[in-house]
Amino acid sequence: MKQVNKVVLAYSGGLDTSVIAKWLEETYRCEVVTFTADLGQGEEVEPARAKAEALGIKEIFIEDLREEFTRDFVFPMFRANTIYEGEYLLGTSIARPLIAKRLVEIANETGADAISHGATGKGNDQVRFELGAYALKPGIQVIAPWREWDLNSRESLLAYCEKHNIVVEKKKGKSPYSMDANLLHISYEGGILEDPWAEAEEDMWRWSVSPEQAPDQSTYIELSYQKGDIVAIDDQPMTPATVLAYLNKVGGDNGIGRLDIVENRYVGMKSRGCYETPGGTIMLKAHRAIESITLDREVAHLKDELMPRYAKLIYNGYWWSPEREMLQQMIDQSQLPVNGKVRLKLYKGNVTVVGRQSDNSLFDENIATFEDDAGAYDQADAAGFIKLNALRLKIAANKGRKLL
Amino acid sequence: MKQVNKVVLAYSGGLDTSVIAKWLEETYRCEVVTFTADLGQGEEVEPARAKAEALGIKEIFIEDLREEFTRDFVFPMFRANTIYEGEYLLGTSIARPLIAKRLVEIANETGADAISHGATGKGNDQVRFELGAYALKPGIQVIAPWREWDLNSRESLLAYCEKHNIVVEKKKGKSPYSMDANLLHISYEGGILEDPWAEAEEDMWRWSVSPEQAPDQSTYIELSYQKGDIVAIDDQPMTPATVLAYLNKVGGDNGIGRLDIVENRYVGMKSRGCYETPGGTIMLKAHRAIESITLDREVAHLKDELMPRYAKLIYNGYWWSPEREMLQQMIDQSQLPVNGKVRLKLYKGNVTVVGRQSDNSLFDENIATFEDDAGAYDQADAAGFIKLNALRLKIAANKGRKLL
Amino acid sequence: MKQVNKVVLAYSGGLDTSVIAKWLEETYRCEVVTFTADLGQGEEVEPARAKAEALGIKEIFIEDLREEFTRDFVFPMFRANTIYEGEYLLGTSIARPLIAKRLVEIANETGADAISHGATGKGNDQVRFELGAYALKPGIQVIAPWREWDLNSRESLLAYCEKHNIVVEKKKGKSPYSMDANLLHISYEGGILEDPWAEAEEDMWRWSVSPEQAPDQSTYIELSYQKGDIVAIDDQPMTPATVLAYLNKVGGDNGIGRLDIVENRYVGMKSRGCYETPGGTIMLKAHRAIESITLDREVAHLKDELMPRYAKLIYNGYWWSPEREMLQQMIDQSQLPVNGKVRLKLYKGNVTVVGRQSDNSLFDENIATFEDDAGAYDQADAAGFIKLNALRLKIAANKGRKLL
Amino acid sequence: MKQVNKVVLAYSGGLDTSVIAKWLEETYRCEVVTFTADLGQGEEVEPARAKAEALGIKEIFIEDLREEFTRDFVFPMFRANTIYEGEYLLGTSIARPLIAKRLVEIANETGADAISHGATGKGNDQVRFELGAYALKPGIQVIAPWREWDLNSRESLLAYCEKHNIVVEKKKGKSPYSMDANLLHISYEGGILEDPWAEAEEDMWRWSVSPEQAPDQSTYIELSYQKGDIVAIDDQPMTPATVLAYLNKVGGDNGIGRLDIVENRYVGMKSRGCYETPGGTIMLKAHRAIESITLDREVAHLKDELMPRYAKLIYNGYWWSPEREMLQQMIDQSQLPVNGKVRLKLYKGNVTVVGRQSDNSLFDENIATFEDDAGAYDQADAAGFIKLNALRLKIAANKGRKLL
Repeated sequence: MKQVNKVVLAYSGGLDTSVIAKWLEETYRCEVVTFTADLGQGEEVEPARAKAEALGIKEIFIEDLREEFTRDFVFPMFRANTIYEGEYLLGTSIARPLIAKRLVEIANETGADAISHGATGKGNDQVRFELGAYALKPGIQVIAPWREWDLNSRESLLAYCEKHNIVVEKKKGKSPYSMDANLLHISYEGGILEDPWAEAEEDMWRWSVSPEQAPDQSTYIELSYQKGDIVAIDDQPMTPATVLAYLNKVGGDNGIGRLDIVENRYVGMKSRGCYETPGGTIMLKAHRAIESITLDREVAHLKDELMPRYAKLIYNGYWWSPEREMLQQMIDQSQLPVNGKVRLKLYKGNVTVVGRQSDNSLFDENIATFEDDAGAYDQADAAGFIKLNALRLKIAANKGRKLL
Repeated sequence: MKQVNKVVLAYSGGLDTSVIAKWLEETYRCEVVTFTADLGQGEEVEPARAKAEALGIKEIFIEDLREEFTRDFVFPMFRANTIYEGEYLLGTSIARPLIAKRLVEIANETGADAISHGATGKGNDQVRFELGAYALKPGIQVIAPWREWDLNSRESLLAYCEKHNIVVEKKKGKSPYSMDANLLHISYEGGILEDPWAEAEEDMWRWSVSPEQAPDQSTYIELSYQKGDIVAIDDQPMTPATVLAYLNKVGGDNGIGRLDIVENRYVGMKSRGCYETPGGTIMLKAHRAIESITLDREVAHLKDELMPRYAKLIYNGYWWSPEREMLQQMIDQSQLPVNGKVRLKLYKGNVTVVGRQSDNSLFDENIATFEDDAGAYDQADAAGFIKLNALRLKIAANKGRKLL
Repeated sequence: MKQVNKVVLAYSGGLDTSVIAKWLEETYRCEVVTFTADLGQGEEVEPARAKAEALGIKEIFIEDLREEFTRDFVFPMFRANTIYEGEYLLGTSIARPLIAKRLVEIANETGADAISHGATGKGNDQVRFELGAYALKPGIQVIAPWREWDLNSRESLLAYCEKHNIVVEKKKGKSPYSMDANLLHISYEGGILEDPWAEAEEDMWRWSVSPEQAPDQSTYIELSYQKGDIVAIDDQPMTPATVLAYLNKVGGDNGIGRLDIVENRYVGMKSRGCYETPGGTIMLKAHRAIESITLDREVAHLKDELMPRYAKLIYNGYWWSPEREMLQQMIDQSQLPVNGKVRLKLYKGNVTVVGRQSDNSLFDENIATFEDDAGAYDQADAAGFIKLNALRLKIAANKGRKLL
Repeated sequence: MKQVNKVVLAYSGGLDTSVIAKWLEETYRCEVVTFTADLGQGEEVEPARAKAEALGIKEIFIEDLREEFTRDFVFPMFRANTIYEGEYLLGTSIARPLIAKRLVEIANETGADAISHGATGKGNDQVRFELGAYALKPGIQVIAPWREWDLNSRESLLAYCEKHNIVVEKKKGKSPYSMDANLLHISYEGGILEDPWAEAEEDMWRWSVSPEQAPDQSTYIELSYQKGDIVAIDDQPMTPATVLAYLNKVGGDNGIGRLDIVENRYVGMKSRGCYETPGGTIMLKAHRAIESITLDREVAHLKDELMPRYAKLIYNGYWWSPEREMLQQMIDQSQLPVNGKVRLKLYKGNVTVVGRQSDNSLFDENIATFEDDAGAYDQADAAGFIKLNALRLKIAANKGRKLL
C-alpha cells in the first residue's frame, strides 16, 4: 500500500464522502483535508464545515467557484458549440477539471501528497479527476476508495457509519437516482433508467417544469455577445455565473433543456442518463445564431469538423492536456468577431431564434437579395465556378469512370 | 452562342419555367422537352401537362418520384445524422441530385443535347443541378436562363408572357417569399427575411402549426428501424415515402420542425432561410437514439467527425461524386446493426426520446448497473487505464512542461 | 489467481518463450499449446518443434502464414498509404493481429481457455495481442508473464532455465538490440539507441546494405497493380508474399528502407526505434504514384485526411475493431480503379518514380497540355471560378474584417 | 470592358510579361506599374529595370523579398510538416501570397486600381494571385491577359513584339519546360513531361546533381531549432533566407530533393510536374525529427490529421484566408517547445536523421528503457489499460456482434 501523509478529499458533506474521510484516516493513517466547492449545484456548501469538523477534520476548504467555473470552463466550451454524441452538453464533464485543479492547488498549499474523490470505478469522473491531477502535479498520489474498499453497498456504508459514529442525515424521499449537479446541469442515472426502454418518470426532473406545465405565454429574451461569450441579457450586463443562473431560471420555467440519452463512456460501456441543462440549451442555440452572421464560412466549418473531437477530449477528461489547449487557442481566436445580439423566443420546451444582429456581421443584404442587386454580384460568374468545379467529374465520366 | 437541338427543361408549370420554355425555343431555336416531378411538394403535377401542351411542347414527362426520392436520397442522408452548419436538414439540397439524374436520363431517352433549369445565378441549386448533370453526362449542355437573359424582374416576365401569349394564372395571396418544397421540407427566403433581425411572420409557415396552436395532448409514436431506415410506425409497415409523409403529418400537427437560420451558400454569400421539416426533425432525433444503443462507440464517433464533411458535400451539390459515394459506402456499412425500435413523445414542438430497444443492442445492463454487477466489471482495471492514459501528461509535467 | 486449464502460447523457440512455457505450466498448473508462425522473419520455424517437444509440449502448431500475412494485412494497409507519425511503416504493428487471430482460433480448436505471449508490459505489442484476442473471443483469459513474474533480468531467466533443465542455445554475437522481424520489416530498439542523439551503428542493420555499399548502377523495376495491390513485377505475376520478398531483396540490395525515429507509444512514452523496410518503402512510393493518375482528387484527399487515424488504429492495436473495418471498407472501395503500372528507379537508398500508366488514368493530356488544347478547356471559366471562391473573402474585407 | 486607370503588373522582365505590359497599356489605355521581386529564383532582378524603362514604364518596383519570403511564408508552412498529396512541398504555391500582397500594397501606394499577372487560365497560380488580391483589397480589378487575349502561341507573341518594338532576348538553349523558381524550389512542367510514363531527362534538372553525380562521401550537418524554425546550422546563427540558401546548396550538392509527380490542380485537372526542393526536403525530415522528441503525442497527431487540409489551403490559394490563419495560430502555438538540435547525414539523395536532442525533450530514458527502470513504470498498469480499452469490443463480441 502506498505511503500517504496527508490527503485532500473532494468532500460534499454527504454520506459517501463522510465515510471516505474516516476510511482514509483509518486505512492510510493520514491526515485528511476536505475541499467543498459551490459550483452552483443548488445546495448550501457551508453546512459541510460542521460535518467535517464533526469528523475531526482540521483543514477545511469551502469555496464559491461559480464565477470561475462559468467563466473559465463553461463559457470556453460553449464557444465551440460543444456537444458529445450529438446530444450531451457535457454538464458533468466540464466541472471535473476545476475540481481537479483546486484539489491539486490545495495539496500544494497544505503540503498534502495525495488527493481522493468519491467517484466509482465504473464511471468517467474518476478519469476526469485523475487525469487532471496527474497532468497538474505528476507526483501526486490518488486514492479512489470505491476502487479499493469493500463497502460496496448502502448497507455496508451505514454499518461503517454506525461503527465510527458518523452522523447520517435521514433524508426523506431519498432519490432512487444517482445525481450530479452544478450551475450547468443536473444529471440522473441508475434506478429505472437502467432500462433504456423505460420512460423517465415526471417526478424525477428537478430543475425544469415539463413543457406541459410551462406557461402558455412565450418569453422573449435578447442575449448580447462579446467574443463569443454572453455579457448581457436584455441589455443588463451580467457576470458569467449570473448569466447562466438567469438562463437556467428562465429556461427551466419554460420547460427547456431536458434530455434523455444513452451515451458511450470512456471506460467502455454504454449508459443511460437524463439531464436538465436549461441555460446551456439556450446558450448553444443562441451561440450558433450569433456565429451564423459573424463567422466566415470556412472558419465555421472547420470549427464544426473539429467539435466532436474537442467534445470527446472534454468528455474523456483531457481538459488539462496540450491538445485541448491547442484546440482552445484556435477556437478562442475564431471568436474575436463574435459580437452582437441574438433574440430568442422561449416557449414550452422550444428555443427559437427570431433575430440576430452584429456590427461584425458578414451578412450582405445587397448581395443576398432576391431583388435587383445593382451589380453587386455577377450571375455569369457562376457558370465558370460550376464548370471548373465539375471538371474532374467530367473528365472521369468522359474516360468511362462510373460512379459506384 | 452554343448550338442546341433539343433541351430538357425542369418544368414546374409556373410562370418562370413557362417563360423559360418559350424563351429557350425562341433563343436557341431548339425543341423543348418538359420534365415535371412529384417530389412531394404538395401540389398536383398533372396540371403541368396542359400548360406544357399550351406552350406547344411535344415531349412531356410527368413523374411521381416520391418513393425513389425518399428511399434513395432522403433515407441514405439520414443514416449519417446529416445537418449542415449545426441546424439545416438539407431539404432542398437532397432533392436536386434526383432531378439532375432524371434530366440526364430523359435527355438520353429523347436524344436531347442540353438541359435547362429555373434556378438563379445566386443560389446553390444551379450548382447542384449542373454538377450532377456534368458528372452523369459530361458532354451535356446546360442552359441557365437566369444567368443569361435580361428578364430580371416580375414585370419583364409578365411582359414577355403577354407578348408570347403565355397564360398567367392569377394566384391570390401570392407569397412574398421564394419557396421550395418537397416531401422532406418547405423553405422560405426573401421578403422580410432579408433582414436577419426581423422575426418571421406566423402566416408564412405552411406545413406546421405553431407550437402554441398544437394540441395540448402529447402524441406517442414508435418507429421501427432496419439497417438504419424506418420501416414501420407503430408496428405498421410502410414504404419510405409513406413513412416520411406520415411523420410530416404528425410532426406538423404537433408544431414540430420549424427552423430559422442564416446559412453560408456555396457561391460565397450568407443567406437567411426559414424551413419546415417536421418529419425530418423527428427522424434525426430518433435515428440518433436507435444508433445510441446499436453502434459501437468509435464507429459512432467516426461518423460524427465525418458528418459535417458529408453534409457539406450534399449542400454544395456533390451528391454525384466519388467522394460522396465513398463516404456513403462507409455510412451504409455502419448501419447493418441499426435495427430496433424508438419510442417518441411529440408535444408542441418537442420531440423527446422516451425509449429505445434492439436485438442488436450493445447496452449491457449487467455492466452499466449501479447495483452489484457480480464481477462483470473489475473496478481495479480503471486505475491502470487512467495511469497509462496519464503517462504522457505526467512525463511532460515532470519535465517542467507547462500547460499553456 | 485466475483458473486456467490450457493455454496457447505464441512461441518463438527462443529463450524467453521457452521459459514462459515452463513458467505457465508451473504457475498455472495448466497444459501449454505452442504456436509458432513463419511470418517471414527470416528464421526457420521448424526447429521450434523439437524445442517445444523437449519442453514436454504435446500440442504444437507450426505454420507458414506468409501469404495470409501479406495478402490480408500488409496489402490492405498499404492501400491507405499508411504511415504512423509521418515516418513509420508499421511493420511490427501489422503482424500482431494475425497472431492474435491464430492464437484464438487454436484456442477454439484445442479447447484452451487462455492465451499467452512474451511481450513486455511497456510496449505496444501486448496491447495489440490482447485487444485482438478480446475482440475475437471475449471470454478468453490472457496471461502476460512479463507483467506478472519476477524474472525481470537475463540472469534470472538463465537461472530459471538451469533450474528447470531448459536447454539454452549459446548464440555468439548476441545482438544488444531488442529486435522483431517479419516479411515487412525488421526493427531494433534498446542498447545505444536509448540515447536519441547517438547514431545507430552500421553493423546493427541486417536486411539492407548501406547506400554507400549499394551498387553504383541503378535498377529499374515495373510494378503492376490491380485494385491497389501489386500483382506482378516486371510483368511476372507473383503472389503477395513473393512480391514482398522480391521487393525486400531488390530494395535491401539497393540500400533502401532504413529508418531511425523516435515514436510515441500507445502506452504513453516516447521510444527510439530503427527499422528496415525495403519492400514497404518501395510499395508506399509506388502506390502513391499509381493512385496519382487513377484516383479522383477528392477521393485521394479524403484518404489522405483519414490516413493518420487509420494508421493510429493499427499502431494502437485496433485492427480487429469495427472502426478499422469501417475505414477499410471505404479504402478498399476507393481502390477499384487503382490498376496499371509504375516504373521505378532504385539507386543507393533512393526510390524514384519515373513513369506511371493506367487504362483507368484520369490524366487528360488534352486538357493539361501547355500547347493548344483545341477548346477542351475554356480559360474564361477560371474568372468566375475565382470570383465566387473569393466572394466571402471580399465581403469580409469590404466590411472591414481584418485578416489576423 | 472594365475601366482601368493604373495597373500594377507582376513583371519578370521576360518575353511574356513584357508583352503584357504593352498589351495592358494598349488595351486598357492605362498606366502600367511594374513590380519585380527577388524571391531567390536565382536570376538577377535588376536587369528588369532597364527592360521596363525601355517599355516606357515610369513606376518601377524592384525588391529583394528573400528574407520576408522565407521568414513569413516558407518557415510557417514547414512548422506544419506540410506536404500536398503525400509528395509535393508546395514550392510554387507558397510564393504566390507574398506577390499578391506586394501587388496590392503597391497598388495602394501608387493609386492603382488594378493588378495584372502572367499566369495562364489553366493553372493554380492565377487562383493564388487573385484570391489573395481580392482578400486584401476587395475592390481591386484583376487583369489576367492569358484569359483575355488571343496571343496564344509563341509565334503570336513574337509577332506582337515585332509590331511594338519590344526587344526580345535570344536565349540559346531555351528550355522546353515551363519553369518556376524561388528560394524554396524550381519546378518543371510541359514538354515530354506531359506523358506521365516518360522519364524526365537528366539535363532538365538545374538545382541539384543526380544522386549518381553526388560525392561519394557523406556530409553531416546539425540544425538548431527555436520554436520550430531553424536558427543555426552547425552552430552558425543564420537568417531564414540564409538557412534556406545554405540547405539548397548542400542539398543540391548531395543529389537531394528531386521529385516527379502527377498532382491534382484546384482548377480540376491532373498535371505532371517535376520539382527540385533540396533545402525543403532536408527541412521536412529534420523538423519531424525535432518534433518527435519535443511534441506531445496527441498534439503531434492532431497536427498530422490537420496537415492535409492546411496543405490544400495553401495549394489552392487560400493563404490569405481566416481559416488558414486559424490553423496557423494553432500550429504556431504548438511550436513553442520545438527547440533543440537535429543531426543529419546527407548522402547521394538520402537525408538520414542520426540524432536529435532538446532541453524540451519529452523522451524519458528512465521509462523507455529495456533495462530495469527502478519502478518508474508499473507494468501491471497495462493490464487495466488494455482491459478497459477492450471492454466495448468484448461486450460487442459477447452480444454476438461479428466484426465485418
